Amino acid sequence: MRKGMLLVISGPSGAGKGTLAQRLLHRDGFAFSVSATTRASRPGEEEGVHYYFLSDEAFAAMEAEGDFLETATVHGHRYGTPLKPVMQALEEGRDLLLDIDSQGARTVMEKLASCVSVFILPPSMRELEHRLRARQTESEEDIRRRLHNAAGEMEQLPRYRYAVVNDDIEEAYTQLHMIVQAERHNTVRYLPEIR
Amino acid sequence: MRKGMLLVISGPSGAGKGTLAQRLLHRDGFAFSVSATTRASRPGEEEGVHYYFLSDEAFAAMEAEGDFLETATVHGHRYGTPLKPVMQALEEGRDLLLDIDSQGARTVMEKLASCVSVFILPPSMRELEHRLRARQTESEEDIRRRLHNAAGEMEQLPRYRYAVVNDDIEEAYTQLHMIVQAERHNTVRYLPEIR
Repeated sequence: MRKGMLLVISGPSGAGKGTLAQRLLHRDGFAFSVSATTRASRPGEEEGVHYYFLSDEAFAAMEAEGDFLETATVHGHRYGTPLKPVMQALEEGRDLLLDIDSQGARTVMEKLASCVSVFILPPSMRELEHRLRARQTESEEDIRRRLHNAAGEMEQLPRYRYAVVNDDIEEAYTQLHMIVQAERHNTVRYLPEIR
Repeated sequence: MRKGMLLVISGPSGAGKGTLAQRLLHRDGFAFSVSATTRASRPGEEEGVHYYFLSDEAFAAMEAEGDFLETATVHGHRYGTPLKPVMQALEEGRDLLLDIDSQGARTVMEKLASCVSVFILPPSMRELEHRLRARQTESEEDIRRRLHNAAGEMEQLPRYRYAVVNDDIEEAYTQLHMIVQAERHNTVRYLPEIR
């Protein structure tokens, strides 16, 4: 049986990761890896579907046990990717998608060298700024901060296996699809199936 | 500018490498790497197009200078891939195809880790035997030897980055095409273009 693929997608906010991730889920047989978090659940969010909701203590205990593939702190809340469901999915031949920030992506790339990492780029910083403003949901300060962060994230680019420029969403998706199809024939995953 | 790709294709005789290589040349913008050889030229073979024809002494001198990416001895004749034209093509952003035996492929994979290596598999040993017999050009002894070699080459499979089973030539080509398209977005080659 073929081994599963852990696809790590990262890139600056506004590059279009979310839309691309949705297509991979619907068209390429990927499942989202469900994260754990210490933040409170929002209306409509289901335990084990959108997140595993944990107390600070439970999160810290899991972290101490090495039960996370990666963790991050955002606005004072902890987020983490539980290791066990990821490894189980890969062993069972299921493909998982991780849509995470560059800090988390770096940890995953280091811990799981067989993961397939893709950095999604906006066509330019100018276009990124345009997209962030078009959202009309963020303050000027937020936009400035996101643009500043994006410039820093770009420096991480060489760590990723692939880079895709999201100028046209159809073209970017096609490119991602071809990366996924190629990596399904990577001997790391494919050999157990051939044998 | 994007860096060129060295695509190394190998696999047992009868797996269909030749047909797939021709398609990559005609449809995907690859050029063949021209080999050097000490064997005599055959009618219709042009110097610098089909081979670089060298004397035993000239070949040995190049080998001593480390001017070959890989060399092999077949039926008493020397064959080798000159290193300089390969490196020059890659620097200039041209994609090169190397269709070589598993011994040569192993050397190239070790020397040039950024190469993209693909092993072309027949659907089964039974089908491989069928294809070799269908050629009607080889003796029973040749067929036995090729089948024996194929079994040995299969053991090299984990060294290759990708494996493609050539059951249907259209499907196998499509798969190879997607590998090529994915690898053109590998950051190793793609970053110089983005910057």
